[in-house]
Amino acid sequence: MSVDRRKVVVGAAALAAAPSLARSGESSMYGLIGKMSAHPGKRDELLGYLLEGTGGMPGCLSYVIAKDPSDADALWITEVWTDPGAHQASLSLPSVQEAIRKARPLIAGFSDRHETEPVGGVGLPA
Amino acid sequence: MSVDRRKVVVGAAALAAAPSLARSGESSMYGLIGKMSAHPGKRDELLGYLLEGTGGMPGCLSYVIAKDPSDADALWITEVWTDPGAHQASLSLPSVQEAIRKARPLIAGFSDRHETEPVGGVGLPA
Repeated sequence: MSVDRRKVVVGAAALAAAPSLARSGESSMYGLIGKMSAHPGKRDELLGYLLEGTGGMPGCLSYVIAKDPSDADALWITEVWTDPGAHQASLSLPSVQEAIRKARPLIAGFSDRHETEPVGGVGLPA
Repeated sequence: MSVDRRKVVVGAAALAAAPSLARSGESSMYGLIGKMSAHPGKRDELLGYLLEGTGGMPGCLSYVIAKDPSDADALWITEVWTDPGAHQASLSLPSVQEAIRKARPLIAGFSDRHETEPVGGVGLPA
């Protein structure tokens, strides 16, 4: 179990996915905002693995990978899921596990992580 | 001009839209992440005005309004635009101006504001 938990790194999701399941209602959307820092010079390679790994994730309404223009090693990842369970389940998908395997050695750390409860807006179901 | 600049408050956009135009290439997507705090007890009303005001904005690829589950007065707003100019132009739309007019008295402040350069992911054009 401890080995599996260490895989929960992609998407700035990390660290506290299970507790969020208990806190948020299953009927609410689930959001994550977070900053991911690559080892120096590795941001573009990390970005590529994240883009590869995030297609075809059931329940994923939005997953935006963005460069930080003020920090050459940093990415911002913002996610919206239909519910916390969909996010949690994504971490077991083969494509995500493969992305995690490739991305992990390039990641220096996470920060600015916030769980949210998306309500609506542009690009989400009404 | 100073009066117009004060209108740049919705979307945690605020404060520094013009400088960003100079810094980012027009061909890159433009992103914003930010936290908006309502006066106590006013978050839901504020949320309603933001939802009303953010439809039909040309060049807006994503605009997600989310509650902060750990702060009863806080919202997180994450935005993706085709380019910085589309974001800037949105601030002059009648629907956005109306939302700003209604929302402004309810807003206590902004924080955690980050401009980003979205690259791709789920829910954006390939």
